[in-house]
Amino acid sequence: MIKKNFKDLEIGAKSVFEKTITEADVFAFAGICGDFNPLHVSETFAKNSMFKGRIAHGLLVAALIDYTLTDILGLGAIHISQNCRFKAPVKIGDTVTVESELVDKKEEKNRVKINSTLKNQDEVVVLTGEMEGMLPS
Amino acid sequence: MIKKNFKDLEIGAKSVFEKTITEADVFAFAGICGDFNPLHVSETFAKNSMFKGRIAHGLLVAALIDYTLTDILGLGAIHISQNCRFKAPVKIGDTVTVESELVDKKEEKNRVKINSTLKNQDEVVVLTGEMEGMLPS
Amino acid sequence: MIKKNFKDLEIGAKSVFEKTITEADVFAFAGICGDFNPLHVSETFAKNSMFKGRIAHGLLVAALIDYTLTDILGLGAIHISQNCRFKAPVKIGDTVTVESELVDKKEEKNRVKINSTLKNQDEVVVLTGEMEGMLPS
Amino acid sequence: MIKKNFKDLEIGAKSVFEKTITEADVFAFAGICGDFNPLHVSETFAKNSMFKGRIAHGLLVAALIDYTLTDILGLGAIHISQNCRFKAPVKIGDTVTVESELVDKKEEKNRVKINSTLKNQDEVVVLTGEMEGMLPS
Repeated sequence: MIKKNFKDLEIGAKSVFEKTITEADVFAFAGICGDFNPLHVSETFAKNSMFKGRIAHGLLVAALIDYTLTDILGLGAIHISQNCRFKAPVKIGDTVTVESELVDKKEEKNRVKINSTLKNQDEVVVLTGEMEGMLPS
Repeated sequence: MIKKNFKDLEIGAKSVFEKTITEADVFAFAGICGDFNPLHVSETFAKNSMFKGRIAHGLLVAALIDYTLTDILGLGAIHISQNCRFKAPVKIGDTVTVESELVDKKEEKNRVKINSTLKNQDEVVVLTGEMEGMLPS
Repeated sequence: MIKKNFKDLEIGAKSVFEKTITEADVFAFAGICGDFNPLHVSETFAKNSMFKGRIAHGLLVAALIDYTLTDILGLGAIHISQNCRFKAPVKIGDTVTVESELVDKKEEKNRVKINSTLKNQDEVVVLTGEMEGMLPS
Repeated sequence: MIKKNFKDLEIGAKSVFEKTITEADVFAFAGICGDFNPLHVSETFAKNSMFKGRIAHGLLVAALIDYTLTDILGLGAIHISQNCRFKAPVKIGDTVTVESELVDKKEEKNRVKINSTLKNQDEVVVLTGEMEGMLPS
């Protein structure tokens, strides 16, 4: 991890990160955010739902984007916004691959935009994200 | 936690949740998402930064919205999107209060919108969020 | 979560909470309380025991009652006592459903009693509990 | 930790365990049991309460008894019941000392009783417990 300068950021820069979503992840996340919806924490409830088993919190999946943002922008970036669109559920045991790309930079305010696409092990898109950030000069 | 029907959801319904953001939360979150940016996990680095200390991941703070969504929508809701705008940093030890409100419902597709405002202990807005969801009939 | 008044509590008020007991839960609980009995933390030992596998600490299972107490009594309740009767073991992977009910309230001292029954996914009662509390006026 | 025989258990046998209750303990416990009452997890709320700061869940404190039970009874004991009486709040940072004593044994069913007294660093009793157990022959 290094500090980067705004002028060195290139449109098209990419970063990829992948991780299996474990039961421990989902229960730790419930413990952080307080959301114990049984779709996430009760196998009995979840297996009788439309999802046929426990699924990860949407924002847990979104959190995997973070690694790629730090990778592309370096240490000093400030996050302005993050939009997430949930496309498909992620079950416990699924492996999610995040691919993020710097799609825009605006000189006047040192602004950047990064789009992310998250897929599961079957290449199904589970989440898309758009991040706006700033890199102080 | 109960199952709710779309017709019983009322515009203006609110939920509040509050929680102190601990060091344990930030490190558990780093362990889930893989973002070990030193602003979050290195006190030495962070205290020399513009933030003067370690701050929570933006999406960790956003995750606190989840509790209020389940509270307002009940068990079966499907998240379609979540937008987050980061307004101010949250330091380890800050207490965040989330206030969420059902601001819109559209009969045709059982769609709902929930807006959230997150403040710290000094009443500073740290994050605003907009969620779109669906409640299957 | 809201503050409630003693006079608004109704005998017969119920709350239900359900959660799968994961390996992560059992090990986190061992780390909190220091009880590393191999029945809980050694699969080798436990699979050769009468339980045929690791079981959760009894008080971990009892802890699931807490959610329903806050749900029924609101924010300001004071716990006076909690009795627990362990009826059957809970294995890692079992899903426990807690059903709690306000069974008594005594005006003179703002006292309440809540009984809880905890069952596993096969409807076997694993624990029964009786709580005495107080709600300051 | 060793296996013990019922006949070797002596009335008057004691075990002592002590541990500081940390913020990490309280937040991990909330994550296990789902009880995010702000008395436990919000410093802002708790410091304005009668307790003047965050307190541990009562059953978290009770869980510290577990260590001493395994210590006195050995590996194979079965817990039948555990009663807890909460006498005073335990704040984050308090150090709790558990002293447990085998007070009774009944030959006919291999039954035992263990009483526990938990005190904080100022010698204030915070919890008393009574456990019934069984040691298979």
